[in-house]
Amino acid sequence: MNKNPSNTMALAPNTSNKRETVCIFGTGDFGRALGHKMIQCGYSVVYGSRSTQISNLIPKDAEVLSHAEAAQKAAVIIIAIQRQHYNFLVPLAEVLHGKVLVDISNNLKLNQYPESNAEYLAQLLPGSKVVKAFNTVSAWALQSGTLDASRQVFVCGDDAEAKQMVMNIVRALGLTPLDKGSLLAAQEVENYPLQLFPMWKFPIFLSLGLAVFFFFYCLALDVIYTYIYEKNNFSFFIAITIPNKVCPVMALILLALVYLPGIFAAIIQLYRGTKYSRFPDWLDKWMLCRKQLGLIALAFASLHVVFTLITPMRAFESWSTSNRIISQALNNITEPLNNTDAWLSDSYLALGILGFFFFVLLGITSLPSVSNNVNWREFRFVQSKLGYLALILCTAHTMVYGGKWFLSPSAYKWYLPDIYMLSLVIPCAVLVVKIVLILPCVDKPLTQIRQGWERNPKRSE
Amino acid sequence: MNKNPSNTMALAPNTSNKRETVCIFGTGDFGRALGHKMIQCGYSVVYGSRSTQISNLIPKDAEVLSHAEAAQKAAVIIIAIQRQHYNFLVPLAEVLHGKVLVDISNNLKLNQYPESNAEYLAQLLPGSKVVKAFNTVSAWALQSGTLDASRQVFVCGDDAEAKQMVMNIVRALGLTPLDKGSLLAAQEVENYPLQLFPMWKFPIFLSLGLAVFFFFYCLALDVIYTYIYEKNNFSFFIAITIPNKVCPVMALILLALVYLPGIFAAIIQLYRGTKYSRFPDWLDKWMLCRKQLGLIALAFASLHVVFTLITPMRAFESWSTSNRIISQALNNITEPLNNTDAWLSDSYLALGILGFFFFVLLGITSLPSVSNNVNWREFRFVQSKLGYLALILCTAHTMVYGGKWFLSPSAYKWYLPDIYMLSLVIPCAVLVVKIVLILPCVDKPLTQIRQGWERNPKRSE
Amino acid sequence: MNKNPSNTMALAPNTSNKRETVCIFGTGDFGRALGHKMIQCGYSVVYGSRSTQISNLIPKDAEVLSHAEAAQKAAVIIIAIQRQHYNFLVPLAEVLHGKVLVDISNNLKLNQYPESNAEYLAQLLPGSKVVKAFNTVSAWALQSGTLDASRQVFVCGDDAEAKQMVMNIVRALGLTPLDKGSLLAAQEVENYPLQLFPMWKFPIFLSLGLAVFFFFYCLALDVIYTYIYEKNNFSFFIAITIPNKVCPVMALILLALVYLPGIFAAIIQLYRGTKYSRFPDWLDKWMLCRKQLGLIALAFASLHVVFTLITPMRAFESWSTSNRIISQALNNITEPLNNTDAWLSDSYLALGILGFFFFVLLGITSLPSVSNNVNWREFRFVQSKLGYLALILCTAHTMVYGGKWFLSPSAYKWYLPDIYMLSLVIPCAVLVVKIVLILPCVDKPLTQIRQGWERNPKRSE
Repeated sequence: MNKNPSNTMALAPNTSNKRETVCIFGTGDFGRALGHKMIQCGYSVVYGSRSTQISNLIPKDAEVLSHAEAAQKAAVIIIAIQRQHYNFLVPLAEVLHGKVLVDISNNLKLNQYPESNAEYLAQLLPGSKVVKAFNTVSAWALQSGTLDASRQVFVCGDDAEAKQMVMNIVRALGLTPLDKGSLLAAQEVENYPLQLFPMWKFPIFLSLGLAVFFFFYCLALDVIYTYIYEKNNFSFFIAITIPNKVCPVMALILLALVYLPGIFAAIIQLYRGTKYSRFPDWLDKWMLCRKQLGLIALAFASLHVVFTLITPMRAFESWSTSNRIISQALNNITEPLNNTDAWLSDSYLALGILGFFFFVLLGITSLPSVSNNVNWREFRFVQSKLGYLALILCTAHTMVYGGKWFLSPSAYKWYLPDIYMLSLVIPCAVLVVKIVLILPCVDKPLTQIRQGWERNPKRSE
Repeated sequence: MNKNPSNTMALAPNTSNKRETVCIFGTGDFGRALGHKMIQCGYSVVYGSRSTQISNLIPKDAEVLSHAEAAQKAAVIIIAIQRQHYNFLVPLAEVLHGKVLVDISNNLKLNQYPESNAEYLAQLLPGSKVVKAFNTVSAWALQSGTLDASRQVFVCGDDAEAKQMVMNIVRALGLTPLDKGSLLAAQEVENYPLQLFPMWKFPIFLSLGLAVFFFFYCLALDVIYTYIYEKNNFSFFIAITIPNKVCPVMALILLALVYLPGIFAAIIQLYRGTKYSRFPDWLDKWMLCRKQLGLIALAFASLHVVFTLITPMRAFESWSTSNRIISQALNNITEPLNNTDAWLSDSYLALGILGFFFFVLLGITSLPSVSNNVNWREFRFVQSKLGYLALILCTAHTMVYGGKWFLSPSAYKWYLPDIYMLSLVIPCAVLVVKIVLILPCVDKPLTQIRQGWERNPKRSE
Repeated sequence: MNKNPSNTMALAPNTSNKRETVCIFGTGDFGRALGHKMIQCGYSVVYGSRSTQISNLIPKDAEVLSHAEAAQKAAVIIIAIQRQHYNFLVPLAEVLHGKVLVDISNNLKLNQYPESNAEYLAQLLPGSKVVKAFNTVSAWALQSGTLDASRQVFVCGDDAEAKQMVMNIVRALGLTPLDKGSLLAAQEVENYPLQLFPMWKFPIFLSLGLAVFFFFYCLALDVIYTYIYEKNNFSFFIAITIPNKVCPVMALILLALVYLPGIFAAIIQLYRGTKYSRFPDWLDKWMLCRKQLGLIALAFASLHVVFTLITPMRAFESWSTSNRIISQALNNITEPLNNTDAWLSDSYLALGILGFFFFVLLGITSLPSVSNNVNWREFRFVQSKLGYLALILCTAHTMVYGGKWFLSPSAYKWYLPDIYMLSLVIPCAVLVVKIVLILPCVDKPLTQIRQGWERNPKRSE
């Protein structure tokens, strides 16, 4: 196939289409990756470097000049060098005057320096317009084109026009700029890529702490007690039996903890008679990590489901089934079906399945792409109505599981209750108070307080 | 650490960076939340209020003035007051002349007023440029910074420039503006946050109706019939056995209903010989809710899987296993393995697992973020090819499950077929017609009709 | 309710709000769908057509004129006709001079023509400004409003202003324009909708190949060997038993293959003493398809979980359980619980469950909408730390599963090892080398090379 005509056609427009020239100081990893990407997107790239004939890794369409020469060729200069070398830029202050300097640096620790790198740069070169950008993008992702992590590029800076120029470059590279305001935000922007799930820390530590406590509680009652008083070595319970008691307990407690702050908030609002006063700090923080608590609860619930389903595969289970059947067979007993047992067992399982089903629905709805496609009312419907439904079903599941044992003394080893009883305390409290709150006599004033534009004497209009 | 230098540096740019001033009328919940957020993003905010010394909840960097004074300070005025108080704005008409008024109000019911709030506002103040925006954002989400639900802000208005100004503010707050056109769209925009899954209503009611029907059908055959003729009380079947018969039946029927409209469309196109005529309305609507039908089918299928897997945990199951084994043991019988049974049971399970696997794949692909990352061809490949594969596997699963019972008279209590037989009707019909449609002699004209640019005599060019 | 006032109000602004006029050449499927959508969004649409009185499917608010007349009415002309008819545009060259022509065409095959359709159009009409756009959008999706697949519209063209005009239209229609650069990119843009999971091809073929190999390996050892030497017909193993051996083996091997390239990369970097040289091509490609390999591994792991959980429902299982218990009962044997067996069985199951749990977490994090909400450090933490944890747990699961059989000669039919032993080779190799790599004496130089800005003599600044 003769490809010439198309290529000839195509080459001419390409050169005419060239975007503006961008200068990059520094030929390190990120400088090169960014240069490559920019050339791909139609920019002319000129590198500023100490030695003008370096590595063959520099994109071959890019020019390499001295810093001063390179800076003169472009209005936007990307500073792809490390903070400790910024002071070498001071002699270039004159040539950089009025230019847009893009600070892309990151630090190794949160708040490593008193001021952010971008502010430090602006301090060194007061005549230039410093814009912070690109620090959240990885060189590897730029190069490979697989931007698996975020495409968002936080941009901040004091000069609106300079910021606009940088945001246009960001867009041209197929990324999404997000204006974070003035250079004051640079500290936050520089800290962002160093964060490790800050919203998850408290929920994870809380649930790990609780899980460890319940694990040892069960260990004492199920393994140590049995070993001491019944001479049975059930140490292998550590692998499945105890985790499968801890997981559902954790799931239920954490799910209840998701709805507890809402209950507190309602009580506080009722007590104060207004919604226009701030909640205590701990309540605000708690409310902000409800999603995380709920997802951890879902993780525990999922583990509980798999641990339960795996039961028939256990050697212990097959041994105890055999023994039960054989002893019945040897005694010539065939029991009639106990209808109460069948009802209890089936309804306990069915409640658990339905509770888990709605729980998973909640989890799916909290996926960012799904929650972006629902409106606020739909989101609240799912998270509140379906969430309470899941809580009710799971609490009922646990109660029916307990069934007839509640009052049997043998269930209280060392006078301690089994953990499933402990797990019921918070959910039952939440549900009881919630029922009180939706009684018409309580709900009406609460709704008025929440809609309460008119009743607040401090409100204007 | 001496933080002074950086702070001194930073404060100066910050003030120079101030964006324009925005005025907010109304110091209610949403007005305050929006003001807070705007100040964070660099705007100067001035509140217009009747009393100028109100609550300490007003952001402390904001000014509070009288309405007229406040309005004079800004080009954009956000009307954070309720519709019923709009008429107090009329005396301010002069000072509001030429200003951009942002209507952020919502109603309590769909189509509560004959005209939308924004249109009503535009009617009251014909000299101002009214833009509808922000009504889909919740005050709580703005304040907490956790925009779990949508970041999309619908913007509509008659003045393009005014709309642009509002969209810039939306972007500056980290939200995504979506231009919905003229103020005519305000009614729709105001209805949006009041909607509760409008696309899901029909599929959910349809499936609930069918599920209830099948539930009582099974109740009659499995519980009542058994009770009357065999004197067995199997009432506990209500909890698990019957749901686990209804769920797979629902899943299979709904999955078939996803592909049925495509079959109808093909037949209509073949019959009419053109694709350029509209489908009947019911078919259009049906085609638009296929995704919802499919996801509900997936939910039923998932429930069926969990209900099935939970079987060995049931008291009934363990009782019947014991009884079977004990009676064999007492009669000294050890059966040889029936190879046909082993084949039937294993292939029925394997077909079900594979069918469910492809079904889940379909579900994952319909997540918005996944479907956004595939092109149209890939989407169609998954939804059509893999979808039919899932349908075939699930239909085969049901058929093999039926296995040898199809023709046994004991399967027909009260002369009624079991529901798994009923469930096969639609899927089999869909598959048979689909096979006919992909026969070359039928497929060729159909493909021509669908690509059919050339053959349509009414087409130009 | 009197709706007049609002309607009167609304109609006036609407007309004043009209966006510019857009011309569409061609009244085919896509031309009509696009016209409908544009009119909805406030554009005036005029169709250029040979016959001016065609189908009633044309949106009724649109005008239909001759091509020349229509073209004169608008600055932007959408060419909704097929490439083979482009030459009829040549006589219109004069009237199209300076106009923006939007090429929306697609081909039927990858690289069907030597030059892209848009370049061909630009060649035919050198005086017009050709922009490629909208080819990734389906007519059906435009019409129905359910843009399930991507909302991204790739735009490319040589004239920046023309491109901007088209991108504004794209945005107005509620779609997301993505600037792909000059018209040179048109070939790529036209190929995009024809692609079918290009990144998935190699991983899928690799895993299918491996799976088929392991399937026949198992068939030979488990079915054919047993048939020949033990005269047992276990042909039904094909349905569940063998798939459930192949799936976990595939999952483990593919998961290890996800982490193997990282190991290679580290060794290459250590050997070369620099990170600034390119990896071999095969390694680059391998690294780019790690996500796909991991997801396929997850699919196999999920199948393994369901196949395992379904075990108690199998006729074979219930037969062998009965036989075991009956033979014990007939011999009056009640075995004591073997504590080692209980430990092995429980810890093997627990390891598998935890490994699968972390594996699913990895899968969820790789959903585009989730990975967009984490920063680079968090993404790496999940994909690397949690990924290795999953690999360790799954490898341990397989090892403990093997348990006591490793050294038993009966496990080696035809002197061949069981496939779970084969599956351990790569994961164990990866883990051993990884442990070596994180030894301080190896990790320190490697970390220095990776941070290695300072030590590289070729770097400037």
